[in-house]
Amino acid sequence: MGLFVQKYGGTSVGTTDRIKAVADKVIGFKKQGHDVVVVVSAMSGETNRLIALAKDMQEKPDPREMDVLVSTGEQVTIALLCMTLKDKGYDAKSYTGGQVKILTDSAHTKARIQNIDVENMRSDLSEGRIVVVAGFQGVDEHGNITTLGRGGSDTTGVALAAALKADECQIYTDVDGVYTTDPRVVESARRLEKITFEEMLEMASLGSKVLQIRSVEFAGKYNVPLRVLSTFSDGPGTLITLDEEYANMEQPVVSGIAFNRDEAKVSILGVPDAPGVASKILSAIGDANIEIDVIVQNVAADNNNDLTFTVHRNDVEKAASILEDISEELGARKVVTDDKIAKVSIVGVGMRSHAGVASRMFSALANENINIQMITTSEIKISVIIDEKYLELAVRALHSAFELDQAAE
Amino acid sequence: MGLFVQKYGGTSVGTTDRIKAVADKVIGFKKQGHDVVVVVSAMSGETNRLIALAKDMQEKPDPREMDVLVSTGEQVTIALLCMTLKDKGYDAKSYTGGQVKILTDSAHTKARIQNIDVENMRSDLSEGRIVVVAGFQGVDEHGNITTLGRGGSDTTGVALAAALKADECQIYTDVDGVYTTDPRVVESARRLEKITFEEMLEMASLGSKVLQIRSVEFAGKYNVPLRVLSTFSDGPGTLITLDEEYANMEQPVVSGIAFNRDEAKVSILGVPDAPGVASKILSAIGDANIEIDVIVQNVAADNNNDLTFTVHRNDVEKAASILEDISEELGARKVVTDDKIAKVSIVGVGMRSHAGVASRMFSALANENINIQMITTSEIKISVIIDEKYLELAVRALHSAFELDQAAE
Repeated sequence: MGLFVQKYGGTSVGTTDRIKAVADKVIGFKKQGHDVVVVVSAMSGETNRLIALAKDMQEKPDPREMDVLVSTGEQVTIALLCMTLKDKGYDAKSYTGGQVKILTDSAHTKARIQNIDVENMRSDLSEGRIVVVAGFQGVDEHGNITTLGRGGSDTTGVALAAALKADECQIYTDVDGVYTTDPRVVESARRLEKITFEEMLEMASLGSKVLQIRSVEFAGKYNVPLRVLSTFSDGPGTLITLDEEYANMEQPVVSGIAFNRDEAKVSILGVPDAPGVASKILSAIGDANIEIDVIVQNVAADNNNDLTFTVHRNDVEKAASILEDISEELGARKVVTDDKIAKVSIVGVGMRSHAGVASRMFSALANENINIQMITTSEIKISVIIDEKYLELAVRALHSAFELDQAAE
Repeated sequence: MGLFVQKYGGTSVGTTDRIKAVADKVIGFKKQGHDVVVVVSAMSGETNRLIALAKDMQEKPDPREMDVLVSTGEQVTIALLCMTLKDKGYDAKSYTGGQVKILTDSAHTKARIQNIDVENMRSDLSEGRIVVVAGFQGVDEHGNITTLGRGGSDTTGVALAAALKADECQIYTDVDGVYTTDPRVVESARRLEKITFEEMLEMASLGSKVLQIRSVEFAGKYNVPLRVLSTFSDGPGTLITLDEEYANMEQPVVSGIAFNRDEAKVSILGVPDAPGVASKILSAIGDANIEIDVIVQNVAADNNNDLTFTVHRNDVEKAASILEDISEELGARKVVTDDKIAKVSIVGVGMRSHAGVASRMFSALANENINIQMITTSEIKISVIIDEKYLELAVRALHSAFELDQAAE
């Protein structure tokens, strides 16, 4: 008999009927003799409704009061879920973040969990109760209500699982697991049985938005087995583990193909090849709070450099205008931008022990006449920037080149 | 410079625009140099929306979880009010009941306040902040969220005013004070400048639903000057005080005419005149949780009694059926009911020192040929039960007989 922390997101608890369905899922586990701690989000739409009210009061709503406001969303859900569990004959008790208590720092709207009191929850569980906790929220040392930022309910789930030493943290969502790539792009995409935390982090940060990155980091740090599965169907989902041995032995070289089209490319051409120039350019961008992803610098024959980097598409005009401003000072020739690009990445811990992965990737793309504009690599991923129009073609070619459509078994 | 606790009800904070208007009222006091603690209810409609959600989960929603659920209503309002106060350039801080903390017993959905920590509020006030507190809610000694029951925000306001030793507790509502009677029935009804707690209690319990009875009791007990005034217009409202000397010296004999048509009359006829019979009848009604208001017993010549009493109209069928059940056992002749009745009362502390008030009342009614069916009196009120169709006529006749349409000044 295990202890499971189950997290249900906003879509899973979006209506009273769906909350009843969640109760049935929870009761299913309870009936098998397991202890269950349930973490819930606000009913879908509720957080946005509250934010709209706030914006009507204050253009930039006060962060402390914003947390007081939006934390009510989860508080509604925990009460409703406990009511339906009781209605179905199961004892249950709700906890707000403050009641648990989930102690955080005081960084309103993006607080970080510092400690969790497990005593009350443990005593409820030992008395046979289902414990229902409001996700996304906590309380600081002064008793102020804090929130962990959007998607923070995943983090609450993982943190509770770590604190309670749960057997598994199950994240219920509207997809039935983590796929080798987006099934809307590649029909033969397969659900992965297992994936490592590191791979999941790369997949998530690259645009496979199944799980919140922070919760995966957290799960990896505390070695909490994390499972992604569907609220709306049965099935084992995908287990995210630390199990590197498994990964090295059995895992294919590449576990998945991630992609995103949120980036744009900015280039400053003809920059003199002098020390400190790149740093000057990139600090100017950083000072404007623009995040830079891929960076490539070509040293040209005439000692003039071309520096190219990618930023979020929303930031491209701002970035270009900053570069225009310092362009004359630097003696640069020209600033050009391109937002018709896409990033495609192959991810897999198997890369560590396999040679030739990059060349296999590049030749798969070359076979389709797809030009690679930029390349960046890490230990377990290789990303390329290509023309946006080739995105789907590239993903399909890579999915097939790394035999991801064939089951691992 | 004073300290004011101001309570704004659900209608006063029913929209974001109205919350902004409340902020302006609060700021008006602040600008005069006063300290202000604001107590707010949930936005109108919100509590009913939450209750409907709860009923969808559980026919009789669990009381603990009900409190977790409905307390979110006020939590939303405190955050929104603080945001708009800050937007208008005033520092403000919100408190949930638990954050204050307002310690209550554990009687969920109808908890009673036991203690209020004023330290944090005092320190905010001394730093120039406007303090905004969620009405209607508290926390028990175990940290469970409790609520004081419907209308409990008035009680929160009065309790805070008592704990903070405020100069006045101002209850903002959609009427501009307490009237001599309902202006919809008597056009010449006047707003009272002052009224005593005792009079207000009698007026309120008799159907002038301006203030919640418990809050008036509380204010009387702790001698908190209470003022009822309008959110939507300016004006001094009505001050409710302990000042009995004022009442005895200046107050007219009768301060107001209250009435209600929520009651029905139940009679059991031909009951043998034996000890314990009335008690047997009334306990049977009490055991069924039916509240009895007026009771009259006539001893007839043949030693057969007629016992008549009034109950809420919703309970009349239940009461009659209980009486039918014990009617044979008691040897009673008949049970009859009448729900076409109304209760009209004159209320005034001046009655204590004036003779002839009752006869003046009865002759005013007799002049209009209104038959009095039952009479009940207390030290400061006389109530009569009459045929419902004469209600308006009776109220107008009494309003005029006691010269309530003439200003006291």
